[in-house]
Amino acid sequence: MSKNLTKREVDYSKWYNELVVKADLAENSAVRGCMVIKPYGYAIWEKMQAELDRMFKETGHENAYFPLFVPKSLFEAEEKNAEGFAKECAVVTHYRLQNDPDKPGKLRVDPTAKLEEELVVRPTSEAIIWNTYKGWIQSYRDLPLLINQWANVVRWEMRTRLFLRTAEFLWQEGHTAHATKKEAISEAMLMQKVYAEFAENFMAMPVIKGSKSESERFAGADETYTIEALMQDGKALQAGTSHFLGQNFAKAFDVKYTSKEGKQEYVWATSWGVSTRLIGGLIMTHSDDLGLVLPPKLAPIQVVIVPIYKGEEQLEAISEKVDVFVKELRKRGVSVKFDARDTFRPGAKFAEYELKGVPIRIAIGKRDLENNTVEVARRDTLEKQIVSQGNVVDVVSNLLDEIQENLFSKAKKYREEHTTVVNTFEEFKNAIDNVGGFVSAHWDGTTETEDKIKELTKATIRCIPLNNKFEEGTCVLTGEKSSQRVLFAKAY
Amino acid sequence: MSKNLTKREVDYSKWYNELVVKADLAENSAVRGCMVIKPYGYAIWEKMQAELDRMFKETGHENAYFPLFVPKSLFEAEEKNAEGFAKECAVVTHYRLQNDPDKPGKLRVDPTAKLEEELVVRPTSEAIIWNTYKGWIQSYRDLPLLINQWANVVRWEMRTRLFLRTAEFLWQEGHTAHATKKEAISEAMLMQKVYAEFAENFMAMPVIKGSKSESERFAGADETYTIEALMQDGKALQAGTSHFLGQNFAKAFDVKYTSKEGKQEYVWATSWGVSTRLIGGLIMTHSDDLGLVLPPKLAPIQVVIVPIYKGEEQLEAISEKVDVFVKELRKRGVSVKFDARDTFRPGAKFAEYELKGVPIRIAIGKRDLENNTVEVARRDTLEKQIVSQGNVVDVVSNLLDEIQENLFSKAKKYREEHTTVVNTFEEFKNAIDNVGGFVSAHWDGTTETEDKIKELTKATIRCIPLNNKFEEGTCVLTGEKSSQRVLFAKAY
Repeated sequence: MSKNLTKREVDYSKWYNELVVKADLAENSAVRGCMVIKPYGYAIWEKMQAELDRMFKETGHENAYFPLFVPKSLFEAEEKNAEGFAKECAVVTHYRLQNDPDKPGKLRVDPTAKLEEELVVRPTSEAIIWNTYKGWIQSYRDLPLLINQWANVVRWEMRTRLFLRTAEFLWQEGHTAHATKKEAISEAMLMQKVYAEFAENFMAMPVIKGSKSESERFAGADETYTIEALMQDGKALQAGTSHFLGQNFAKAFDVKYTSKEGKQEYVWATSWGVSTRLIGGLIMTHSDDLGLVLPPKLAPIQVVIVPIYKGEEQLEAISEKVDVFVKELRKRGVSVKFDARDTFRPGAKFAEYELKGVPIRIAIGKRDLENNTVEVARRDTLEKQIVSQGNVVDVVSNLLDEIQENLFSKAKKYREEHTTVVNTFEEFKNAIDNVGGFVSAHWDGTTETEDKIKELTKATIRCIPLNNKFEEGTCVLTGEKSSQRVLFAKAY
Repeated sequence: MSKNLTKREVDYSKWYNELVVKADLAENSAVRGCMVIKPYGYAIWEKMQAELDRMFKETGHENAYFPLFVPKSLFEAEEKNAEGFAKECAVVTHYRLQNDPDKPGKLRVDPTAKLEEELVVRPTSEAIIWNTYKGWIQSYRDLPLLINQWANVVRWEMRTRLFLRTAEFLWQEGHTAHATKKEAISEAMLMQKVYAEFAENFMAMPVIKGSKSESERFAGADETYTIEALMQDGKALQAGTSHFLGQNFAKAFDVKYTSKEGKQEYVWATSWGVSTRLIGGLIMTHSDDLGLVLPPKLAPIQVVIVPIYKGEEQLEAISEKVDVFVKELRKRGVSVKFDARDTFRPGAKFAEYELKGVPIRIAIGKRDLENNTVEVARRDTLEKQIVSQGNVVDVVSNLLDEIQENLFSKAKKYREEHTTVVNTFEEFKNAIDNVGGFVSAHWDGTTETEDKIKELTKATIRCIPLNNKFEEGTCVLTGEKSSQRVLFAKAY
């Protein structure tokens, strides 16, 4: 398989699919719509998990684990939630296979092993969790209940794409219970903030915090808070959502608590999640025609060292020099790989680590041995510099910070250049079709207009930005009065 | 619910079930046989995961993720494996629910959304993984392939018990591919060793390493290596297994590699796993009639501090003193909880932390303030001592090590006292019925005899110990010649 990728400007979608496979991140499996996450892709997910998990714990959450299956009777209890997920869910109906009498060596479902009640493979866990919370919550003393789960979920999507939309995906789902509406809303917004900080500080992916319009809300939520990122092709990506669920699940599962005043009250709820979809966002925010570009804070390998040598003796001399600064780098928590394989030429290694997005590459050859230098190349700008061996540790440490910052500012600049404020529908269409990215426009607040705009332009309301300025205006489509602008974009 | 547990000698099984629920480790869910792992139980699992994951990576393994579902045609490819798991597997047959026309507000399976091919929820992942490895392995350069997965699996067991045997459980499954038989066997034995080290050094649970008799082997394995622990009620627990799979899966999925000599060869395989069952083993190795006893290395809270105070002023004075050594303890990596809740009395807190197995409890009251002392109580022996505040850090650090060691030696002593060498069937039955634990006996090597012994005594062969001494003897049941003793026990 050629290592050369389709160029982004030729076919962005093809570039993405090729990159995911060639950089060894993931591949399609024998199960329709389900992916295999390969070790290199999974290592990025592990880094994401570690940071998010730390942030969740710092904000008072604990992890737990709830069943994979949701009995049908629980699944259907919260009507809107059920309606939202029923159309695309995997259903377990039997608990045994038997030898197929007609086909030797083959198995078939045992018709006598039919479940009395079907089990839905969780597409999200509100139902099974709120049914459990009923037993955990009696009094105000049991609140707030702040729980997170790392798990796999299944949504039988018809059109799938590696990381971005898969039938099974990995995620975390927080499910919290509160005594008051105010506290639940604060929690939902806090977690939106945590997600935004993670996206910006670790993924170097700028995001806009906002709330969803009614038609884009999570099924069963009263309000959905979102973080929206912009990909290099001008399409938006919903990167994480946090929902204020009101008392919908508390009522569906009859979860009440006794207040300090001795009254029985329904509990208020939130849920929030991010998934392996983030890896898709990471790829499409920074990568280029040569391959992945990873922000140092999430790169499984931050620095790769490639020796350029002839014969064992030279390799040994190089290894000796390299050992000195590798030890020091590792002491500082930098992950370093020394690739001395003799089965590949240096050029092939350079291409491989470019494809895999390793932030810094150090090359060291015969001349460097003589001059006590190394060549340091950064993946983001492809710039190279000659550095004396005594300075490598400081240069690399600073460079890692610089790359992290550069990726963020570059992505932010791209977003600024691809955010257009429009006042007429003509301008709207022009911005969507010819500029791409976010379009800030007045909207009359109706689902009807939202649908019509989507039909005409394929753009949807990504969010009503948080801390939006209120200003008088008129809807770009209908001319009706509007008091604030919202952000539209075509989206993944 | 009363906090008092049934005593172990009255009903061990009842004691276990009560303890798991009352110590907030886990509970049964609305899904038959599936448990909810509560935050305190999950925190123990996280500690186990962290150590195991580190050990796997140190031995060269990487993590990846494979699909939850196994298409029926892949599931049935390796005949013995399929036969072993077909009888108890969850089968997905449909991908949609719809409104039930006969029951308003209820859903039913949409008969038009039947899958062409049924999907089995993975009971273990050899089939889906070896079908994937086919695409990853071409040459000897691609070997060895050393991969681990953290995942949930489902086995439709009829009789379930929290942690010990549940329909869904969490585990890790390693799946490796090798060029030679020798290398694969070494890998399988290496992972058995890693498991044994984890069990003994972290869980403080002594284990016996051995191999399984043919009838107790994993379905599809040529050899199963096991670690066997002994519980306080004299029953054995299979705590982890590592399988040499021969070329069975390589042949079923046609996975060949080109050797250095240019020949096409089938690949050799291993798989190995431990699960949340380990938590059951942990509980039944150390805990007592007051509740859990946790080894310090896996305790989510290692030290709890309970202030005994009247009024805010005294609490403040105590907090000030406590802060000094808490900071120092945390700096040393000790996890400390200061429980100043005013909603519970000190006695209730003492009982709660005893129930939850916190290794060390520190109490500090008015007299301690005057004397600059604290009371330090250890959970394992229930011994208390008065310690001057200046010495708390050292005393606690040493005590944590001492408790870890004490738990291990106590468990080892119990096992030694419950291992009986027998030479006649009379002695065998007597040992199984009246002593419990392991019985070391000669066996003629046939499955027939093994089955007969099981029928007569309920004891099974737990393992043929590694590095077994060879000695002439005669089978306890049949009197046939035998060259080595094997270990029998009743088991979970």
